[in-house]
This record gives sequence, structure tokens and C-alpha cells, in this order.
Amino acid sequence: MKSDVILLGHGSGGKLSHQLLDDLIIPILSGIRPSDQNDSAVLPAPNGRLAFTTDSYVVDPLFFAGGNIGDLAIHGTVNDLAMAGARPLFISVGLIIEEGLPVMDLKAILESMRKAADQSQINIVTGDTKVVQRGKADRLFINTSGVGVIEHDFEIRGDNARLGDKVLVSGNLGDHGMAVLASREGINLKSSIRSDSASLNAMVQDLLNVTGSEIHVLRDPTRGGVATTLKEIAIQSGIEITIDEACLPIAAEVGGACAILGLDPLFVANEGKLLAFIAPDAAQKALGVMHRHPEGRDAAIIGEVTGRAAGKVRLKTAIGGMRAVEMLAGEQLPRIC
Amino acid sequence: MKSDVILLGHGSGGKLSHQLLDDLIIPILSGIRPSDQNDSAVLPAPNGRLAFTTDSYVVDPLFFAGGNIGDLAIHGTVNDLAMAGARPLFISVGLIIEEGLPVMDLKAILESMRKAADQSQINIVTGDTKVVQRGKADRLFINTSGVGVIEHDFEIRGDNARLGDKVLVSGNLGDHGMAVLASREGINLKSSIRSDSASLNAMVQDLLNVTGSEIHVLRDPTRGGVATTLKEIAIQSGIEITIDEACLPIAAEVGGACAILGLDPLFVANEGKLLAFIAPDAAQKALGVMHRHPEGRDAAIIGEVTGRAAGKVRLKTAIGGMRAVEMLAGEQLPRIC
Repeated sequence: MKSDVILLGHGSGGKLSHQLLDDLIIPILSGIRPSDQNDSAVLPAPNGRLAFTTDSYVVDPLFFAGGNIGDLAIHGTVNDLAMAGARPLFISVGLIIEEGLPVMDLKAILESMRKAADQSQINIVTGDTKVVQRGKADRLFINTSGVGVIEHDFEIRGDNARLGDKVLVSGNLGDHGMAVLASREGINLKSSIRSDSASLNAMVQDLLNVTGSEIHVLRDPTRGGVATTLKEIAIQSGIEITIDEACLPIAAEVGGACAILGLDPLFVANEGKLLAFIAPDAAQKALGVMHRHPEGRDAAIIGEVTGRAAGKVRLKTAIGGMRAVEMLAGEQLPRIC
Repeated sequence: MKSDVILLGHGSGGKLSHQLLDDLIIPILSGIRPSDQNDSAVLPAPNGRLAFTTDSYVVDPLFFAGGNIGDLAIHGTVNDLAMAGARPLFISVGLIIEEGLPVMDLKAILESMRKAADQSQINIVTGDTKVVQRGKADRLFINTSGVGVIEHDFEIRGDNARLGDKVLVSGNLGDHGMAVLASREGINLKSSIRSDSASLNAMVQDLLNVTGSEIHVLRDPTRGGVATTLKEIAIQSGIEITIDEACLPIAAEVGGACAILGLDPLFVANEGKLLAFIAPDAAQKALGVMHRHPEGRDAAIIGEVTGRAAGKVRLKTAIGGMRAVEMLAGEQLPRIC
């Protein structure tokens, strides 16, 4: 790269674009040879139903404790595939770069993407790069879209929760949101707060192997947090969910920081956690599987499906009361992912 | 929608996000029922190799003569699938919205997307919406990623051009670039200049049916124009291409506008055109197929593969000289797509 920063011409489609792609982006992300670069990636036929998902990432700042926009963009899309019970196969990377972005920052982010993709066993197979003028974007936005294969025939869907199902969460709540907030605002929170950004596909694969069709719903509680995600599932499945505040796993530092800032960890975003609705007989077995994975170390059973009152989520408070949980209203923490 | 403009809270993941999705985006784009909304779309197994592609669209202005960012985002990704010889199946829509975008503009763009998808026979199956603060994006950026199936076993690739192949272009050069430029700069160009933005998959399907494996390369000459795309193919295939200036189809208004502005239509972006490298025996037949489609009405044979001098593109000028054609250097027309 002859320039230290990205120039508008790097998005022209011409000579400068080819330099950016050939000298930086493609060698790091995919290593696809120039002779093999085409308008679409051509890929072998998968043996099963497809899962297909997309997410754009606009997190601010680009780098935060525990990750950056690049590995977040891989983890997030891998997790959306895993939540369909799919094995992630292929991922695309669409970059929208603001003119002036330091090439060093871009390089660090791309390297994180490649590392996260390798760890998640997903192949970066296609991409696109656009550059816009200064002031027309905020340094870097990334879209990743993912394709996976579903190698079993059971249904894991938001409308599949059943009466009696246990509700499991795979670990502590709110780590990602609080880490980003701390990095963004320069708040002097305990330095131990780090994003939980991680791929969950290996853990999900083990869960599927052990519990099979007894997993009814999987979903990752990102924007809007666990509360919003539970509410979505309650609406989709037409059920009532009751969760127990005393069972919610929350790291002490995150709980403390939320208390100081007036935030409820139930509504704070996670990027390496899942919610699972599992038949009661299989719940302990599933919890054991989660505990054997580092990302599931703090997994807990936090509640169950208690009725057929569609769309209702209730929280049994630590002091024994009962309150209704609603979706996040308004914008608690903008640009958290 | 209770608000006339998009608010930051519409990207929260919470209640406002659900309203935006349920009241506007999903009914227009896909009609997927709330109970069927999950982290990934789950799709039937396709019968053949997959094509997978992604593109982000940052065109400025959002609306231009002949189209808008929405139908452009469908056409562009459909075409990238078609250029692999694939039948487009599924498409994702990732929106990055600047706070304050008028809901009416968003609605018009979404409606164009749905119409373009229906015409292209591709299903919008998954999506994502983010909102960033005023001044942190430029009204709207759209990513679309596409999945298609390749239902034949021949190879259509940039490295597959062969000595003697005829080079066909499916119509007039530079319409899209000049239409966007005119809309953006408020230049009083002839009002007849309109973007060629269109899906080419129906025409490609007919081409494949008629010429089969005699089509060696398909590529759509978008950013960087026909010149840059030919240069890419010459490099990938290790060949020399000679094109004949007198054969280049260029609308009179576009040619005139380019002359006034000092632009070369060979380098101006197209969004509804393809280049095809076809065995000489099949070239006339292919041209006939193109002429039967409205998007291929002005198709022409513009040159051929004339040697094994890797990466060389030569233009036989109208006055009989010969000059080398290089890739677009620098940024001729930023944010053209």
C-alpha cells in the first residue's frame, strides 16, 4: 500500500481498487488467487437445507475491550447461522470505508476477521469494498452475510417454544454492551469488563449432538438484550415465560457498572451468548454441555415456559415480587453492534 | 409509522425497531410472518453448486433518472449471480440508515426493491436494519447478498477466455454513470439519459440455453466501465483482447455528454450490461438471443481475443490507429453505485 490512509480512489473499481484488494484485503481475508476472482463465489452443493443470514455492523468505537468491529462481524453472523441449528459454511464481507481511514486500522480489523473466521471454521468466499467521502460515513461499516447447512431435520425456531421448556442462557449478561460503552465514553469502569464477542457454533453443535430435537428455540440476545429476545420468543410461540432474577448470571463488575449508570443488564447487548428453550428432561444435560465450553462456563437455567398467555414475560424478583418484562423502548445504547 | 423520519431508536433492537420492521420494512420487502422471523432464513436445499455474492450500494443521489439505490441494489446482486451462470434464488437486504431519513423516501426505495426482486424472480428472505446518528452516514447505504444455484456443469469464469473468442456487449455504454452524474450535479444534460439499471438473469438464462458451454466468460462492467472489466479478464485469462472503437454501442446523448465533460464512455459505469466471451461459432447466435431481450436490444460484437500476450487490451480507433487500454486510474465518478 503506497498510502497510509484510504483514498476515495480506492473505491473506484479501477487501478487503486485493485491495489487495495490485491495488496491488503484479499491476502488477509481469503487468499483467493486473482485468476479465481469472479462476480460470485462458486461453491459446492451443500447436503441439506440452507441457512442464510445478514448483519451490518456499525459499532462505535471500532476497537473496544475484548474485540473490534471485525471479529464482531464474523462472530455475529456465525451465531445467527448457529441459532438455526446450521453448520456455518461461507461468509461474505462488505466494507464501507470512510476516506481517510488509516490503513493500519483496516489491516488490524481484517486480520481479526480472518482469525475469527478460521476459529469459527467458516470460509470468507466473497466480498465488496466501497469508499465514501470524509464525513459521509463513520470510519468503517461492515456487512457480513452467511450461508450454512442444516444437517438434521428438526426445527429450531422462535415459534417452537413449548409449555414446560426450561430457559437456559449460556453465560453472563451485558458484557458486550458495557465494554463498548466503557470504551466509547472513556468511562473509567473496572478494566476487567470485556466484550463477550465469540462464535457459538462449536457449542451449538455439541448441544445438537446431545439433545437433538429436544432443543426447541435458540437465539442470541444481542441488541435489546435478554429481555427483548425473550419477549420476541414469547410473542412468536404464543407463550408466557417466567424468569427468576436470582438465577440471572451477571458478572459483579458489569452489575455494578449498570447500577451506577442506571442500566438494566437484562436489556444490555450480548455478542457471545445464546438463549435456549429445551425440553425439561434434557435441560440439565444441555447445561452440562454448555459448562464444558469456555463460552458456556457461566451458563444457567434462568426460567421456564409457564403458560399460554401469548407474549408475556414475567420476572420473579430477588425479593419475591413479580414484574412484567417489556421490550427495550427507545435507544438505550446506540451503535452497540 | 408514528414518525415521519427515522429515529436513532429505530435501530435499538427494541420496540421502535420492531415497529419499523413490522409496519414498514417486512410487509414491503418479504411479507414474512412474525412467527417465521428468525436469526437466519431456513431454505430448501438447492440442486446444484451454489453461487454466493455480496455488494454494498452507496450511490449518491439516492434517486436518479432511471432508478434508485433500492432497485439498483437488487439488480446489481442479481447480475453478479447471473454472471456465474447461476439462477438467482435468495437475497438479503442490509440497511444502514442515517437518523432523519424521511420515512417516505425509505418506503419508496423499499417498494422499488420489492418490485425489482419480483421481476428478477429472486426472494428477499433475510435482512438487517441499523440506524446511525445524523452526520455519521449519508442518508442510506444498502447491502444485498445473493445466493443462486448453478444448474449446469460448465465453467463461466474470468480466467476462461480463449483465443478467438468473440467479445459481446449487451448494449450501450455508460448510461448509468452519466445518469447518476447528471442527477447528482444538476447538470442540464439531455433529459433522455437514464440509468440502464436492470436485471440480466432472464437474458443470461436464454443465452445458456442456446449456447451452453460455448459461453466462456460473463461479467458486468460496473465501476471502472468496460475498459477496466476487459483488462481484468485479459489478466485473469492471460490473453490479449482487441476491441474496435467503431463497434462500441454508445447512445448519442451519452457520447455527447461524455465529450463535453471530458469522460471516456469506456470507463463509465453500467448497471444493466454484460460482457460475454463466446466461441466464434456461437457468437452470432448469442447476439440474436440478446437482441430478443429489451435489455439486449443494442447488443454488439465489439472485439475478440487476439493473442496470448497476458493482460493486454488494445483499442482499434475509429481513424485506424491502435492504442493500449488500461484500468481506470484514480476516481472518475465516486459513489456511482
